Amino acid sequence: MNGKKGSFEINIPSIPKAKMPGNGKKSSGDDMAFFSCKVWIWNVWEFCKEDSNRVVFSLKVGLAVLLVSLLILFQAPYKVFGTNIIWSILTVAIVFEYTVGATFNRGFNRALGSLLAGILAIGVAQLALSTGRVAEPFVIGISIFLIGTVTSFMKLWPSLVPYEYGFRVILFTYCLIIVSGYRMGNPIKTSMDRLYSIAIGGIVAVLVNVLILPIWAGEQLHKELVASFNAVADSLEECVRKYLEDDGSDHPEFSKTVMDEFPDEPAYRKCRTTLNSSAKLESLANSAKWEPPHGRFRHFFYPWSEYVKVGAVLRYCAYEVMALHGVLHSEIQAPYNLRITFQKEIQDATTQAAELVRSLGKDVSNMKQTLKTALLKRVHSSTERLQRAIDMHSYLLTSNYEPPDSSKPLPKLSHTLSSTLYDLSNQLAELDKTDLDQTSNLTNQNPPPPQTESYHEMMRKQSRRLHSWPSREVDAFEEEGSFSADTMIPRMKALESTAALSLATFTSLLIEFVARLDHLVESVDELSRMAKFEHEGL
Amino acid sequence: MNGKKGSFEINIPSIPKAKMPGNGKKSSGDDMAFFSCKVWIWNVWEFCKEDSNRVVFSLKVGLAVLLVSLLILFQAPYKVFGTNIIWSILTVAIVFEYTVGATFNRGFNRALGSLLAGILAIGVAQLALSTGRVAEPFVIGISIFLIGTVTSFMKLWPSLVPYEYGFRVILFTYCLIIVSGYRMGNPIKTSMDRLYSIAIGGIVAVLVNVLILPIWAGEQLHKELVASFNAVADSLEECVRKYLEDDGSDHPEFSKTVMDEFPDEPAYRKCRTTLNSSAKLESLANSAKWEPPHGRFRHFFYPWSEYVKVGAVLRYCAYEVMALHGVLHSEIQAPYNLRITFQKEIQDATTQAAELVRSLGKDVSNMKQTLKTALLKRVHSSTERLQRAIDMHSYLLTSNYEPPDSSKPLPKLSHTLSSTLYDLSNQLAELDKTDLDQTSNLTNQNPPPPQTESYHEMMRKQSRRLHSWPSREVDAFEEEGSFSADTMIPRMKALESTAALSLATFTSLLIEFVARLDHLVESVDELSRMAKFEHEGL
Repeated sequence: MNGKKGSFEINIPSIPKAKMPGNGKKSSGDDMAFFSCKVWIWNVWEFCKEDSNRVVFSLKVGLAVLLVSLLILFQAPYKVFGTNIIWSILTVAIVFEYTVGATFNRGFNRALGSLLAGILAIGVAQLALSTGRVAEPFVIGISIFLIGTVTSFMKLWPSLVPYEYGFRVILFTYCLIIVSGYRMGNPIKTSMDRLYSIAIGGIVAVLVNVLILPIWAGEQLHKELVASFNAVADSLEECVRKYLEDDGSDHPEFSKTVMDEFPDEPAYRKCRTTLNSSAKLESLANSAKWEPPHGRFRHFFYPWSEYVKVGAVLRYCAYEVMALHGVLHSEIQAPYNLRITFQKEIQDATTQAAELVRSLGKDVSNMKQTLKTALLKRVHSSTERLQRAIDMHSYLLTSNYEPPDSSKPLPKLSHTLSSTLYDLSNQLAELDKTDLDQTSNLTNQNPPPPQTESYHEMMRKQSRRLHSWPSREVDAFEEEGSFSADTMIPRMKALESTAALSLATFTSLLIEFVARLDHLVESVDELSRMAKFEHEGL
Repeated sequence: MNGKKGSFEINIPSIPKAKMPGNGKKSSGDDMAFFSCKVWIWNVWEFCKEDSNRVVFSLKVGLAVLLVSLLILFQAPYKVFGTNIIWSILTVAIVFEYTVGATFNRGFNRALGSLLAGILAIGVAQLALSTGRVAEPFVIGISIFLIGTVTSFMKLWPSLVPYEYGFRVILFTYCLIIVSGYRMGNPIKTSMDRLYSIAIGGIVAVLVNVLILPIWAGEQLHKELVASFNAVADSLEECVRKYLEDDGSDHPEFSKTVMDEFPDEPAYRKCRTTLNSSAKLESLANSAKWEPPHGRFRHFFYPWSEYVKVGAVLRYCAYEVMALHGVLHSEIQAPYNLRITFQKEIQDATTQAAELVRSLGKDVSNMKQTLKTALLKRVHSSTERLQRAIDMHSYLLTSNYEPPDSSKPLPKLSHTLSSTLYDLSNQLAELDKTDLDQTSNLTNQNPPPPQTESYHEMMRKQSRRLHSWPSREVDAFEEEGSFSADTMIPRMKALESTAALSLATFTSLLIEFVARLDHLVESVDELSRMAKFEHEGL
């Protein structure tokens, strides 16, 4: 089942340790064995409860092999089919897949492969027979070599990769028929018998799979896509919540987090699996195409490939969430009080965006087509409010501004004008001091305010001293001699002075996320149209 | 080969149309057929030339099936093994994989599965025999059902998923042995014969695979990782180059680009495949673990899993490149002249970073361990220079600044002071006008420059009028009545005023990329240490 075309991997979230009985304290001997057995049974039980389809699938496989075995265990069919019927068992074991579509797909590969191999084998066997007793084994040997080479080469060809299993079937069926035909004579009868029994196996597998509690790939694909919507919305909210909560106290080392373990961020991990789900969605869609209309998907040529497209657009949104997450765990962080300043706007935009994503997911889930204009406009307006807030207070993001007291949040947006003026005076002061000669002719036109070292100027200098930047010239780094003894890997220094711009990055990414939502809405609309979802509220 | 554990997909770049002969003009009848045949042969030829291993693999499969077929075509071995030898053919066809490691892995699954199934079958057959002639088929039937159910269930269990094929083998081997044992009697002989012939098939497959031009999974993994390094470096440079070149004239619609077609960005597409390569690296590493020491990888327990880890860290760097690419194709763009202002710094940092990534890739490729401190420090210092430039000129990123002439690049960094002063005077003017009453007490302390509507003020107003923002209040969007007739999907408005912050986003992401390089260097160091790469230049 593992990642093959036409099948898919089943992800099982590990069961939290705390939920297992017999965990936490050590006991010895019998107790140990008893407990570990209990834990084991508990795990299996949880695993089954999580998705009862797993048990259904297992029982169906058991039933299918039992049914074909009956053909050989009972006297009557055994007399008809003979020992060739063992090929039915092999076929069932190989063809039976988790979903109906995958089983059809594999059955088709097996059937077509066997048929082609049979025809080829009969042709070559007749040719070999006509060459006489001496040449026959040579013709057969050469043909086997050629078939082996050609099928192996063809299955590497990109557009034929999905039919890899079919080529394998051609290879071994051809060899089996031609070789046993050579030894037993009558290749036509051999291949016919084999095709019959393969057909019986295939039919049993397909019937059991379809008639008894079928597991449809389409249904799985549908659920998978809806879950992706929720995962993206959840992880967006989680990421923003953590960003606004985070007061810089707990920053795990990046190297610890790089190996994908964020135990406190379940939604992020779900989102990451969304990013890696493209292969899964595609293989499910491939399988679903083989399925007849069923359940909620009642019309022929249901647009399964549109699901893959919506998934791709959703993944593009998820990339932005990943980038947001990157900023959240970045080493250069905007000060807490700056983040708090824009809290309301960021929060609003996030909530609206997440709501829109969830509502799209719900629409897909219910197969309803609702008008998203109102919701979309609301998202836009809250994002525009965020942009305006950033726009109006962008001076806060430049390094020259230092909040009066970094432990207190900044004054609310509407009351920051006084600080702005402080800031401006600082800028002028700085320019005046550092580049007096260059600016002298300009300052005559626009006379700067009279200079004393203001409170903020002092604060800023102090803070720079704290961060000791720039304590030396950057170019000093480049003198080769200065670090020859230093074999440690140097760590990049985060410039605290540009830290505030990290907030701009965060909001830009959030805004870009919202911009991509337009396309998400569009692609869901396209899906609704093509899949003929019910209209509602029009 | 398609995405299975222990195997991997082979990506073939599509052959550019222009290179194909017979392209471009239409001809009819024979010519057509001749040309399409020529094109086809040309394609196959290119496909083989691209990676000669493909041809080698195909020929090896042909040889292996030929060898086992000889056992049945020649009289002597046929007399020894009988018809059971056809199981060897089946085994070769199923076990033979592209790489040595994958073949070992699959052979192991097949061998262990067959062995377990054989033992089980003999046990159950003896039990069934002892229950008497009537009960025997029932015992056998029930056992088949149970084995079918249990193996199917077990292969769904997450930690057993890699052995999925083994469970399949257990199922059908068990059924075959017990059923044919029931019909032919003597289940022990049946299972022994079968195990012999499976062993012969497995041994032939492994020997051919290992002794004749072996394709090692380890070697492939090694090359794959090195290629990833180059892909990330290339796409970083490509992305930055396009960002600095892009004068806003050619922005393809996002919806056209979302379906992953960036025909003019080959490096980006390579980078995206790097992002999706985690499964491939993992399956190659899984296969490589089965391989004996070979070629350049001479010691036992070679740390193949470290390759996967380095790949994961590299992927984290690639996420930043994806985000940079997102900014490049974002709808909100910083003005061209602003980008040009920081061109040198951005270019420097990018070149250095790309050089470091490539040099790491080269080290891995050559299995050398060189000191990266100098290079890393150079990257850091150029990044710090970029940060300082942004820091010093962050006022350029705020909305209140409008360049004098948007068609000309901004004056270089060292000459922007005059514009700064203009800008400051504008800011003061704006504040003064809009909130005169609030600021009056402050302006007494810092008297603003005399106010006339300056050139820049005019420019800014004009540009705002052009973008018609904010032409109406944001809250107007929220009045439900105002868009009830509007069934179109509204497009998000990009606020031009915050567009400059997009540059901040771009540079922040670039800086974050560099910050992550530290961890990349670290992980490559760890790999070098564990894989005992040669030291050089120490």
